[in-house]
Parts: sequence; structure tokens; C-alpha cells
Amino acid sequence: MAGNSFGDAFRVTTFGESHGSGLGCIIDGCPAGIKVNEEFLQSEMDRRKPGAKSAAVTARKESDRAEILSGVFEGMTTGTPVAILIRNENQHSKDYSNIKDVFRPGHGDYTYFEKYGIRDYRGGGRTSGRETCARVAAGAFAKMFLAQYGISVTAYTRKAAGILAEETDFTEIDRNLMRCPDKKAAEKMLAAVEEYRMNKNSCGGIVECVIKGAGTGLGEPVFDKADAMLAHAVLSIGAVKGIEFGAGFESADSDGKTNNDQMRSGPVFKTNNAGGILAGVTNGNDIIFRAAVKPVPSIFLEQETIDVNGENCSIIIEGRHDVCLCPRIIPVIEAMSAITIADLILRNRASRA
Amino acid sequence: MAGNSFGDAFRVTTFGESHGSGLGCIIDGCPAGIKVNEEFLQSEMDRRKPGAKSAAVTARKESDRAEILSGVFEGMTTGTPVAILIRNENQHSKDYSNIKDVFRPGHGDYTYFEKYGIRDYRGGGRTSGRETCARVAAGAFAKMFLAQYGISVTAYTRKAAGILAEETDFTEIDRNLMRCPDKKAAEKMLAAVEEYRMNKNSCGGIVECVIKGAGTGLGEPVFDKADAMLAHAVLSIGAVKGIEFGAGFESADSDGKTNNDQMRSGPVFKTNNAGGILAGVTNGNDIIFRAAVKPVPSIFLEQETIDVNGENCSIIIEGRHDVCLCPRIIPVIEAMSAITIADLILRNRASRA
Amino acid sequence: MAGNSFGDAFRVTTFGESHGSGLGCIIDGCPAGIKVNEEFLQSEMDRRKPGAKSAAVTARKESDRAEILSGVFEGMTTGTPVAILIRNENQHSKDYSNIKDVFRPGHGDYTYFEKYGIRDYRGGGRTSGRETCARVAAGAFAKMFLAQYGISVTAYTRKAAGILAEETDFTEIDRNLMRCPDKKAAEKMLAAVEEYRMNKNSCGGIVECVIKGAGTGLGEPVFDKADAMLAHAVLSIGAVKGIEFGAGFESADSDGKTNNDQMRSGPVFKTNNAGGILAGVTNGNDIIFRAAVKPVPSIFLEQETIDVNGENCSIIIEGRHDVCLCPRIIPVIEAMSAITIADLILRNRASRA
Amino acid sequence: MAGNSFGDAFRVTTFGESHGSGLGCIIDGCPAGIKVNEEFLQSEMDRRKPGAKSAAVTARKESDRAEILSGVFEGMTTGTPVAILIRNENQHSKDYSNIKDVFRPGHGDYTYFEKYGIRDYRGGGRTSGRETCARVAAGAFAKMFLAQYGISVTAYTRKAAGILAEETDFTEIDRNLMRCPDKKAAEKMLAAVEEYRMNKNSCGGIVECVIKGAGTGLGEPVFDKADAMLAHAVLSIGAVKGIEFGAGFESADSDGKTNNDQMRSGPVFKTNNAGGILAGVTNGNDIIFRAAVKPVPSIFLEQETIDVNGENCSIIIEGRHDVCLCPRIIPVIEAMSAITIADLILRNRASRA
Repeated sequence: MAGNSFGDAFRVTTFGESHGSGLGCIIDGCPAGIKVNEEFLQSEMDRRKPGAKSAAVTARKESDRAEILSGVFEGMTTGTPVAILIRNENQHSKDYSNIKDVFRPGHGDYTYFEKYGIRDYRGGGRTSGRETCARVAAGAFAKMFLAQYGISVTAYTRKAAGILAEETDFTEIDRNLMRCPDKKAAEKMLAAVEEYRMNKNSCGGIVECVIKGAGTGLGEPVFDKADAMLAHAVLSIGAVKGIEFGAGFESADSDGKTNNDQMRSGPVFKTNNAGGILAGVTNGNDIIFRAAVKPVPSIFLEQETIDVNGENCSIIIEGRHDVCLCPRIIPVIEAMSAITIADLILRNRASRA
Repeated sequence: MAGNSFGDAFRVTTFGESHGSGLGCIIDGCPAGIKVNEEFLQSEMDRRKPGAKSAAVTARKESDRAEILSGVFEGMTTGTPVAILIRNENQHSKDYSNIKDVFRPGHGDYTYFEKYGIRDYRGGGRTSGRETCARVAAGAFAKMFLAQYGISVTAYTRKAAGILAEETDFTEIDRNLMRCPDKKAAEKMLAAVEEYRMNKNSCGGIVECVIKGAGTGLGEPVFDKADAMLAHAVLSIGAVKGIEFGAGFESADSDGKTNNDQMRSGPVFKTNNAGGILAGVTNGNDIIFRAAVKPVPSIFLEQETIDVNGENCSIIIEGRHDVCLCPRIIPVIEAMSAITIADLILRNRASRA
Repeated sequence: MAGNSFGDAFRVTTFGESHGSGLGCIIDGCPAGIKVNEEFLQSEMDRRKPGAKSAAVTARKESDRAEILSGVFEGMTTGTPVAILIRNENQHSKDYSNIKDVFRPGHGDYTYFEKYGIRDYRGGGRTSGRETCARVAAGAFAKMFLAQYGISVTAYTRKAAGILAEETDFTEIDRNLMRCPDKKAAEKMLAAVEEYRMNKNSCGGIVECVIKGAGTGLGEPVFDKADAMLAHAVLSIGAVKGIEFGAGFESADSDGKTNNDQMRSGPVFKTNNAGGILAGVTNGNDIIFRAAVKPVPSIFLEQETIDVNGENCSIIIEGRHDVCLCPRIIPVIEAMSAITIADLILRNRASRA
Repeated sequence: MAGNSFGDAFRVTTFGESHGSGLGCIIDGCPAGIKVNEEFLQSEMDRRKPGAKSAAVTARKESDRAEILSGVFEGMTTGTPVAILIRNENQHSKDYSNIKDVFRPGHGDYTYFEKYGIRDYRGGGRTSGRETCARVAAGAFAKMFLAQYGISVTAYTRKAAGILAEETDFTEIDRNLMRCPDKKAAEKMLAAVEEYRMNKNSCGGIVECVIKGAGTGLGEPVFDKADAMLAHAVLSIGAVKGIEFGAGFESADSDGKTNNDQMRSGPVFKTNNAGGILAGVTNGNDIIFRAAVKPVPSIFLEQETIDVNGENCSIIIEGRHDVCLCPRIIPVIEAMSAITIADLILRNRASRA
């Protein structure tokens, strides 16, 4: 009930603060018989890690090594809970006196304090983006499970700093620091991001995600529709402020004749305005959605705020921070999507007698 | 696990098909001591009911009377489950031979058949929009509970048939058939909707929802953030294809300095780009979101499809159907929002020792 | 969270008070493709119904007709929620002035009042044994599902009024009013029960339950062990005060050599002290447990109690009440067991990749 | 769904195998503002630890140090998940060739293999009693929470090796190795246990548990009754084969007049046959229950069994093993009870508007 778990049959519970002794997760319901690739797990951790040399992301010195504590025996999952621990390494390295008693605008400092009456202010505590590393670890197991079904999850930057990727070349994604499937757009994005950095400011963007091979029948009517579950999963990422499936907000301006995906023998659907989901159940098309990513709230310009006593003051945030979250949020969106699909596959097994 | 429940502490489970003997819900966790207003309950049912004279919505002859079966004694909730039944009245009135073996484009006919191997084809069965009447009944109880806290939930048509409401006059909403808070825009919308009807086509729109008085501290980190729960709730409505909070997709094009809501002693936030939610927890501002509503899939033009044997065929849908869903989806979005907030209030009670 | 649901994959939520307008349930997760036998459903209702001519049970005039509201189409479950309604027929027939402000000893009157600050005192409201009719309806669907796997659930009176059934002849159970598998013991039990009735008193007993054909692998380590789930299910029945599996409390006096079921090729286990469950997972043996049923608290002797103001007073309960609950609790224990096993079967489907 | 979580509002998820790298838990829903006493946490771990010099329990060399990974800041819980890790220290110290392919009678070896198709045979993997150390760690936090409400949980050996404790002197419990509240009985138990050890055999017993100060109103009707939840909690401990509340199985032989607890102004109940729970809700009396503990299945006598190919063979178990589990299961029963009560307290907060 307290909200640190996601999924029902493939259930991930995470823990950990930015500057506590460690973060991690338990996957309860990870089925027995998944071949575990520890190198893949670590490579997923590395994709999310701050420190990739990039204009967009910051460099925090954490090795982010994922240690599997349980649930794996002789290279296979055993059906018992998979627990993973990622130690924090530089948790004592910083002075927090400037944010100890002051709420940073755009952050959860104020709302956590209101909710719990106490907050771990070191690096944002549990509201830190660092929290997502536990999700990526769990997502790696979900991806290993999905791989056995031939299902892939691929996210990329569709838009950043106001620049739209017009092409969608999957082979390009890992070749540029923006993780953008359009080489030319990526270059423009990087230049624009660099300008935001020079101005001590930050920028937002849009991440698109495509899930291939999910087949038909996933999603549980009526409340746990596949799109509702994915929306829940993706909106649970701090910086995401919106999501749309298939034609999405454009369908609001469309008409029924145009928007309905006509059906034909064979590939079944002639178009994919539905984004692969009809009445909440996957229809065999690619599942496709886009998430709106807000600008990084940690900027280096002076901002107005209040302190814990409600008094007006100003704040200038210090340290290293991302300028645009898109590149680093991509592995997190993939992880949450993979967890959601893994969960829906297991849940769907109960749908027939 | 099967997906027909929503909420954790204020938990709503619904049942029922479009042309079975009835639909309804159980609210488990409806707290004791809520004063029950049966007239209000029925008025909420009536707001959702097909039959309001309108260009946008259709007229099905159902009285939609909500019968409270349990959980209320001498005008008060008792803490035991509240069950509500809405009988279907014209369930035998129609001939379904044209859709019995054929999948309607844009509907869940095909995906349900793939998932369960069997489907109740009468009026769409459980995929029918009629399913939402059980949600509205549950939502009425959530609203009665929220009223005791001074919390209101108001949804309205922000856009329909491509026409945007520029004004936001809450007193106007119930005065026009589009439930639009802009009188002039409402007139244009109605005219445009009428044209879609004449062309046997349909149109989409955007519904906006504002929740006032929710206060601070609602939302459960990290996965059950207030926005994640609302997204789950609203995307579980069949026709909704996207959601955005506060600045939403516009924040993707914004910068940190502009997008961060600066804080000041007093009303706390100077702007509301966050839509009332920071790090998943309500910040005391109005909660505000917008939902993309796709065009009604039931249009009267000939469409391409396949039958249950996978053979190509065409279909012309008969009967009465809405042209634009916005007016009727408004009470459903309000209901799901009210249920979500009621649930988060009860869950939040466990946050401190 | 509020406790009116049981099961995870085969999830039953019940509602209803003794003297409200009706009781019933929703089964969410009833798989598609179960052949529905409405006569069987009604016969299960009739087995639980007060009114069987018997020394042990009372006669309340309710037809207890179970109406299926949803989830069944053309004689088959469709995978959507199965809702069942049982109307109360004589809800206005009684005068409750003697219990309106007074707490009956051995009943939930006092504890519900303490918990909710309000109680539906008519016939005990939701604490009435009548609540269990919704469970029996749900259990009938569970049994239909189990029948497709060749699994049977059989409960019977092992002991009543101090008399122990020494024989276990399943064919005898339905031939006597005590539902006892030992003809001679049944006769003695009936005579003893009749004496308790004459003395305005009541008596307790022990119900034993055997589940055949469940196979291996059911039960979810570590908290949702098959025995833990069955214990949860059976202890949720108001009058049950204890449960034991296999050798049960006798194993407390046993030694390892005697108590360990030795294993052999073929039927695998030479004995069944474990009651069919090892480390919480079914081992292929019959599952066997016994439940302690307390004496009916509604007796016709004067009792000491307090009223809602905390003042001392006495009470003499009126109306018709059972003398020994065993015969009527048997279908309820079977229902809860069948629901538990159905749930564990569906959950077990997620255990391997 | 996979069963490694317990509790709803105070939700404990455990992980870990006997000979993996570690065991532990996440408590999701541990309220903010609990003063954390790390010494108490460790003392609880030590109470459960094998190694207390005793006739009844074995000595495994594990320090069982509980490391808090998250959720605690400056000595207080923060409302975020509390994760605890206990490293296994001697996980590579043993040769398992004699049980690698052979199923030990009375253990979960066979059933886990049937369920998952794979098993971690080292020391029983997750079926090992060592799994319970994670429960005790979580239980320590539950106890700290309960302490703020003045609630105590005390378990002790009521019976062992056939010898019954006639006295109930709480001050005696920690003074003898049997954790028995009757000094003379404790001496007899120890002598009897020693004899079982000499005979390479083992014995069972009964643990009784008393919860004081829980007050009224805890327990969620109808399925999550306080006794049903406690039964679920306690039966989830591997060696427990039965549970009874208050008069328990004796009430089966009792009559209504005797068994009903008469009520009087003041302490309310004159007796406590109900064990502190009426209609599933606590009534203000002490909650009292007894659990049947089976004899330790690991005995040093030759036993009949089968191997993974289904072939008959025999087995002689090696290593160090407890003779009677009662002393070591006491902290586990306390932990599970404390978790259950903590959970019901938080859930009860949602019962009134």
C-alpha cells in the first residue's frame, strides 16, 4: 500500500536513498528458469549511470555495481525472490548545509516534508533520480525474461531542447550521446543542450518507446489495461509529466474514419493509431508511446523559495546536474516498460481455464 | 490480479456487461460515517447517462437507477462494503448478427477474442462504454467522502472537434451540452460535432480536470505517485489515449528556469506548471490534468475488417452512437479522479507513526 | 486493504448484511472457459441454507436464490468478473429493539461498534453467519473450475457435542443431518444436540476437510504457503477458533522419526502426517485439515452484558438459532478451501518462465 | 502474488537463501517517526540465532549482523522503505553431495523441485529455517512501532517433548534455554530433549503467544479478521502445523453458556475464551494463541526416500540440527505477530471517515 512496489505477478519493490548506504530491489515473482546474464545486468546499470561523457548528463563517480543477493543458482533463476543491491560509494562526500533547511523549487523537498514531517535532505534522499538505478536492475531481469519470448523494448529521444528527431533509425540510437534515432537532429540537440548549460539553465524533451513482439492478449480489463499500466509505470518516474499512446493527443483532433485502424487478413492492422492496444489489450502491433520529460529542476541560477519555517529566501543549487534528462531516463523508461510487460505476460496466464 | 479493481484503501471492483442483466460495483474500504445522499448518487448516474439531448451523445433508453445493496444503514456508511447495482433494461432489444462474427475496427472485439477465446458480442459486452456507469456510482461515494474534506473535482471539455475553449468559466460548464467552460467555443463545438454526425463520422477532444482542496502530502512514493495513480485511473477509460499534468507536453519544450514553480511564503507556489504534484506528492496547488479522448470508433461509414475466421470483410455499424465522447466521459474522469484522491487520503493516514 | 476480498488470482470480494437488501460477491479472475452449471450453484446454496430439517440447524425462510449478474455468456465464463446476487427476503420481519443498544456475548456487536462507531444491528448485520452465503456462491464457481482438473473438496463433521466420528465413510456424509461420515456417531451426535437445544444451550465441534487431486506444486513460498492460505481462509469464518493440518497438534507430541513421512517410488509418501503440504507446497498427497468450531453464541439462557453506554444489563436472545454449527459450516469450509486451491492453481502458473 | 510479502499497510517482503550471499527484507509502509534502536534490532537477531548454548538448538557460526540499508535517517524512520541485509558468512563451508540429488523426508526439497523444476539444495535454500532471520529483522521494527502504542508481544514454550508448562511466569522465560515460563517444566523439557538428541531423533512442542495492549478495533472483516491474519502469519512458518485462539480446540467440546465471555462494565469481559478477538476484531482482552510445532525433520537416523529420478534410496542427514524448534521459533512467532498487529493498526486508520 505504501507505494514502493510495482507489478502484481512480476512484482518489483525498491528501496534506497541517494546518500544512504545503498539502493536496490526485490523481484518477487521472477519465474524459475530464466538464464541470468550478469554482464547484461551490469551493462544496463552502466547505461543509466551518470558519467557517460555527454553534454546532457552529469558525472557522478559511482561504479553502480549490481550485486545479486538471492534467487539465482548456477546461472538460473530459481523462482525465489531476486534481490539486488547497489552500494552508494560517495555518500559522505558532500556538504548539504545549503539545502538542509531550504526547499529546492521543482523538487520533492517540500512535499516530502509535508507528508512525512521528516526528510533525508542529502542529495534529495529518495526523491533523487538515483532511486531509478534499482528500477534498471529489476528491468534487466524483466528484459532477460522477455528475451525468451522474443520481445524487445527500445526507447530513444524523440525531441530535446525543442528539436525534433524526424528519422527513426534504431541503429543510430547508441551512436550519439542524446540516444536519438536521427543523427542530424542529435547533433543539433547536443549543441542546444550545451547552450542551456552555459546559461546555467536546463531543458526538457520527449522520449518515445517501442515494444516489439508482445503479441496479442496482454492487459487486464478494465482497470489494468496495458496502456493504463504503462502510464502508471512511466508516470512514476519523477520527471515525466505526460504520456500518450499511438496517435495520442493528435487523435483528439482526428475523426473516427481516420483514427480507426482498419483490419485486414494477415498483419491484421493497416495502421497503428491505437499504439498497439485496443480496449486495453495488446493487438499484436508494436506498442508505442511517448513521454514528456520536464526540464531538470536543478539549475544554477538563483531561485526564489522558502525554508522549513516558511520564510522567504533564495537558493543557488550547487554540484553537478544533468541539463537534459532524456538520455538517462531512456533506460529507466525501458526498465519500467519491460517490468510492465513481464507482469502482464504472467498475469495473462490466468485468463483461461 | 485480474484487473477489475482500482484503489488500495478505497478499493472499487466493478462488474457487468453492456447487455447482461446488470452492472455495478463493490467499494471495499468505504469508511464508516459518510453521510449518504442518494439523490446525489442518482444525479451522477444521470450525468453519465446516454440520453441527454445533445448533438454529441446518443440516446439509449436506460433509467440507470443505482440501487445500494449494502454498506449503508440509516443514511450513513457503516464501514462494510458498499455494493451498488444498475440493472440493464433493454438487454434483449437488439439483433447482433452483423457483429457476432465480425470485429469492429477501433473496438476491443478482436483483442478480447484473442485474450479469452470467447466474447460476449452483445453491444461490446464488457468493452462497452456502458461499463463506466459502475465507476460513476463508485465515484459518487468518493465525492461524498471528499466533500467532507472540502475537496472538489471538476472536469470539462477543453477541446472538441478541433475547437479550443479559451475561457475557463466553471459556471458555464453545466449550461451547454458540450460541458465546455467557454460559451462561445461550446457553440462552435456543437456545430462542428453536428457536421461530423451528418458525415456519419465522429471526432475526438480533450477533457481537462481540476481538483481543488486536496492539500499537501497525497501520493505514495515511488511507484504510486499521485500523478501515476491518476494516469492509471484515467488511462483505464477506454477512449483515453494520453494524459498530461500541469504544463505537460509543453514542459518538454520549456527550460528549468521557466518551468520550476518558484516558492513564496503564503500561497507557497507562484505558478502551477507542476499541476499540483511534486515528486509524486501533492503540493497544495490545484491538481490539474488533461486527457486526450479519441474519436468514437463506432461510425456509420463502411469499414474494412476481418471476421472470426480471419477472412477479410467489411462492416457498417448500426444503432445509435455518440459522435464525440467528451461530454459523457467527463463524469467518468471525475469519478476516477475522486476515487483516486479518496484512496490516497486513506493511504496517507499510514505515513506517520 | 479493507478485508472483504480473498484470493489473489481467483479473487472473491463479498458484500452484504443479514437484513439489508441482499448479499453477494464478485469473482475477479474467474478464468474464461469454465462450463457453468447453474443447478449445481443453486444446490450449493441450498446445502448452506438454514431450513434443512435438523436438530442442529435453524429454519429461516429464505429461498437463497443465486442470480448470476455478469461474466457468463451462453453457459460459459468469459473471463470478465462473475457477479452473484442473493436477495434477502425477510429483512423487515423482525423487531430488534432488544439488541439495538445491547451487545450480545460471543458476537461481534461490541467489536464492530468499537471499530466503526456505528453498526447495523439487524440480525448482526455483516457479522451474521448469513454473510457466508456469498462465499458459498463463489465457492461453487471455484468447484466448477477444480472439477475440470479432477480436484474434489469434501468436508464433514468429525466431532460434535463431544462425540467423535470413528469411521470415515464418505458415502454416509449426505445421509445424515450432522453430515458425519460415521452413521452411528451421527445418531449419537443428533441426540446430544437435541439435549443442548432442550437446555437452551448450544455446542461446538470439529469439521474435517479433505482435498483430493490437487497434485504437487501449489502454494507460494514463503508467506503464502498452501497451509497458511487455507488457515487464513478457514479462520476467516466467524465460528472457527483453530485449525490443524495432517497430524496437527498431535505432531507437537511426536518425534521426527515417527512424524516424517518416508518417501518411496510410486505413491511417493508412505504416510500423510504432513497433511499433503511440505514447506508450504502441496506434495501430491490428500490435503487434510481440521477446524475447531465454537459453540453457537446465540443461546436462549439469560446472559450478562453491557449496553452501548457501558452500563451492565442482561440479555435473553430470541428467534431461531442453530444449536451446532458443524452441518452448516461444512459447505462454507468447502467453499473457502475450493477458492484457495483455485487461487493457488492460477498463481502457480507464474512460477516458471 | 508470488508470496514473499506479508502485510498490506506494514508490508514486509523477504529474500534470501540459506547459503546464498545474504538474506533480508524490505518493509514498505514503515511509518515515519519511529525511533530506531539498532541495539534492540541486533538483540532480536541474536535471540533467533543458532548458537545459544542449549540442548534444544544447534550452533551455526553466523554473526547474523543486521545492516539497515535505507529508510532511517538520524535515528528515525523517514517513511521510505526500510531495507535490512544479513550476510551469510559460512555459505561455502559445506559439502552437499549427499542431498544434491536426494529429497530429505519432512523437508521441502521434493515440493520445491516439483514446483520450480530447479532447487538450490545448499542447506535447503529458501526452505531453510534460516529464512526466518529476515522476518525477525522486520519484526524488530514492528515491535519498535508497537512499543510507541504500549503493545507487547510475548511468546514462550507451553509444551515440549510431551511436557506441559503448568505455570506462566513471564519473568522466567528468558532464564531457561527452553524459553519456558515454568521453571520446573523447563528442566524436565531440557532433560527430555537431551534424550531425543542421544537417540538421533527430535521432538515437537507448542508455543503460546500473548499480545497485550492491542486495544479494540483491530482486524478487517470479513476475510482479514485479526485471527485469520495471525493464522496466516504463523502458519507461514515452516514447522507450524496448527494454531488455536483462546479456548481453541477445547471450545469444540464446550457449550455456549460456558464458552461465551460474559460482559461487564469495566474490564468488559469476565473471561477470555475468545482469545481477545470477536468476529475477527480485537475486543480489548489479551490476544492469545497457541501454535503446534512439529518435530525437527532433520534427524540423524537412516530414512527412506527417493532421488531426483524417482528411485528409492536411503538418507542419513549430517551436520548440526536443532532437536526441538520451540526456543528458536519463539522470536519468529513474535516477529510475525508484531508485523500482523502493526499492519492491522495502520489498516484500521482507514475505517472511519
